[in-house]
Amino acid sequence: MITLLSDFGYRDAYVAVMKGVIAMIAGDVTTCDLTHALPPQDILAARFNLMMAYPHFPLGTVHLAVVDPGVGSARRAIALQCPSGFFVGPDNGLFSGVLQQETVLSAVTLNNPDYWRTPRPSHTFHGRDIFAPAAAHLAKGVPIEALGDRLDPTYLTPLELPFTRSANHCTGCLQYIDRFGNLISNIPGQAVPDQPWQLTLKTPSQAYDFWGIKTYSDVPAGTLCALVGSHGWVEVARRGGSAAQALGVAVGAVVELRPFIASE
Amino acid sequence: MITLLSDFGYRDAYVAVMKGVIAMIAGDVTTCDLTHALPPQDILAARFNLMMAYPHFPLGTVHLAVVDPGVGSARRAIALQCPSGFFVGPDNGLFSGVLQQETVLSAVTLNNPDYWRTPRPSHTFHGRDIFAPAAAHLAKGVPIEALGDRLDPTYLTPLELPFTRSANHCTGCLQYIDRFGNLISNIPGQAVPDQPWQLTLKTPSQAYDFWGIKTYSDVPAGTLCALVGSHGWVEVARRGGSAAQALGVAVGAVVELRPFIASE
Amino acid sequence: MITLLSDFGYRDAYVAVMKGVIAMIAGDVTTCDLTHALPPQDILAARFNLMMAYPHFPLGTVHLAVVDPGVGSARRAIALQCPSGFFVGPDNGLFSGVLQQETVLSAVTLNNPDYWRTPRPSHTFHGRDIFAPAAAHLAKGVPIEALGDRLDPTYLTPLELPFTRSANHCTGCLQYIDRFGNLISNIPGQAVPDQPWQLTLKTPSQAYDFWGIKTYSDVPAGTLCALVGSHGWVEVARRGGSAAQALGVAVGAVVELRPFIASE
Repeated sequence: MITLLSDFGYRDAYVAVMKGVIAMIAGDVTTCDLTHALPPQDILAARFNLMMAYPHFPLGTVHLAVVDPGVGSARRAIALQCPSGFFVGPDNGLFSGVLQQETVLSAVTLNNPDYWRTPRPSHTFHGRDIFAPAAAHLAKGVPIEALGDRLDPTYLTPLELPFTRSANHCTGCLQYIDRFGNLISNIPGQAVPDQPWQLTLKTPSQAYDFWGIKTYSDVPAGTLCALVGSHGWVEVARRGGSAAQALGVAVGAVVELRPFIASE
Repeated sequence: MITLLSDFGYRDAYVAVMKGVIAMIAGDVTTCDLTHALPPQDILAARFNLMMAYPHFPLGTVHLAVVDPGVGSARRAIALQCPSGFFVGPDNGLFSGVLQQETVLSAVTLNNPDYWRTPRPSHTFHGRDIFAPAAAHLAKGVPIEALGDRLDPTYLTPLELPFTRSANHCTGCLQYIDRFGNLISNIPGQAVPDQPWQLTLKTPSQAYDFWGIKTYSDVPAGTLCALVGSHGWVEVARRGGSAAQALGVAVGAVVELRPFIASE
Repeated sequence: MITLLSDFGYRDAYVAVMKGVIAMIAGDVTTCDLTHALPPQDILAARFNLMMAYPHFPLGTVHLAVVDPGVGSARRAIALQCPSGFFVGPDNGLFSGVLQQETVLSAVTLNNPDYWRTPRPSHTFHGRDIFAPAAAHLAKGVPIEALGDRLDPTYLTPLELPFTRSANHCTGCLQYIDRFGNLISNIPGQAVPDQPWQLTLKTPSQAYDFWGIKTYSDVPAGTLCALVGSHGWVEVARRGGSAAQALGVAVGAVVELRPFIASE
């Protein structure tokens, strides 16, 4: 199985072109769209969706991710083999979320033209000419080392989001806002204490405090609150509505988690 | 085969997560998206699309539908076995359109944790943790009774749209507006008389009368008219345009069908 | 394999209905969406996306394309057999781009009701009742001649875009604007000379000149330029942005390609 993630949108047939290329090489492989409606060139959004979705797929799945503002420049095209499966795409930080959770068993630069669609790939559509063929060959069982030169995974391009943790406090930031308007931070659910807690969200002009709750049914409809989302991160949500719409904040905004202290 | 319907949208990878969960349990099952672009929490829109689409799928298809504003509350998670296939989702009226056309052979509450993804399901994403696993197990041939306690189908949550019929008149309402701007009522095409007929559409401020026609080619481009749509219900449409845009009405608006009487 | 292209959108289950019909007839056939988010009734956009995508699919693929403003009128429903595969849809110019590149081996009108979904097809949804069944039967191996009367392919409905070529000049027009805002002309990349070149884009009120470049990395971010796109046509693009947004032009605008002459 091959999953596909991109910022190509659903209006043009570019995604289908990649699927056609895959079908040409590996006709019996199933594909599954993660999403193609990411904002153009939004590496952070790609990073989050990939990190959230990949653990739910069978071992050995090939994850093809193409959000690639640097296409045509010197950025590397890579493939990674990890315990849960393979990852194929540009080396621009897209896989940095996955790599917090996975060990890299093998990493290569996709520089062997034998596994490209054509010896003269387009300067603007490596998804079609380099990445989709690589994913299809991996799904067919070609060893990753055949696709190009080995790469030291410690030198993959990082994309680090601010996060610090002390005994009682965590400071992080919003890493994604989903279609329901949930504001998803990079503070892991495990950081939530057993005692009552609160989350502070800071915008350039204001700071908002939210109670930490267990589930929506703990609060009335319309209430803004903080909870551990189904994806495992702490989020700000609004029961029956959109927190994003109510607050108007953006990815990157600072969040702080701490135990609730009544005297504050 | 499993069909999927939700209000999760196409921007986030939540739908893909459900497909990954299905692939983990039933790797060789094909999935087909009905739609995931329904307005958030719009049970009526989900009800219509499911009712329109399911009869076109092979017998035994599993239809997974997750529009679930009550997730985390006491609403039941259910599976239904009908002559044409299986239906899995929340018991909130979503299946009420299907149930006008289908007999329930067996109905269960999905309360057997052996068939959940995890013994501690998320409070906010039953699609991933309860519904998708149930659908996958049904597609693999697990008997519906294994998934939980039997349920009396007469107590499923209703969602009734106003509809009355006398000798010559039908009164109903708009049940869906599609992307082409067709205003689809809940008056079945069979109610249309052999003689000339008309449809009245009532908004809070105004009433509009439309001629009943057989097909678009009966009227010039731009004309608003009433006809039996391809889905089998009476609709108001505009040839080569959008009736919704021209009239600005909403789901729920009252419609009346009657024979055309020249003297009126 | 069957590809699907339509203007049905992703909000209603109409596309899924076609897939259900296909699954009923040819249960083991794989489907692949080209796109369903084309502007309603935009035959030109359908023509471009189909022409761009089909060469990437395996030989024998069936391409089902339903952008059909004339549904219910006298326009013909057709199927074409070409060296690379089959094409099924309305005869309204949709296939005119493909036919610049393909020979028609056999063409038929889909007038044999034995291969329709029902002997009384809907007046408004031939995608479901005529086209999807035809595509499914072709994918199953039914000979194209069984589907209806032979048709002389020289009388297929044309849809010609203005294009002239002299020794040093090409004049064409914009044929598509993609989601990234690239302005794609109908001037083929092969027309680009070896020497420096420029492209002129004419709007009703203004003419713009762009340098021809090889790849984005030749220009700074934000620069508007002309290049041969990955699809093989000359396009106007903006590095790291949207040319469409910057220029506000529409499909049909005139473009001229010529060698760059310093003295101009």
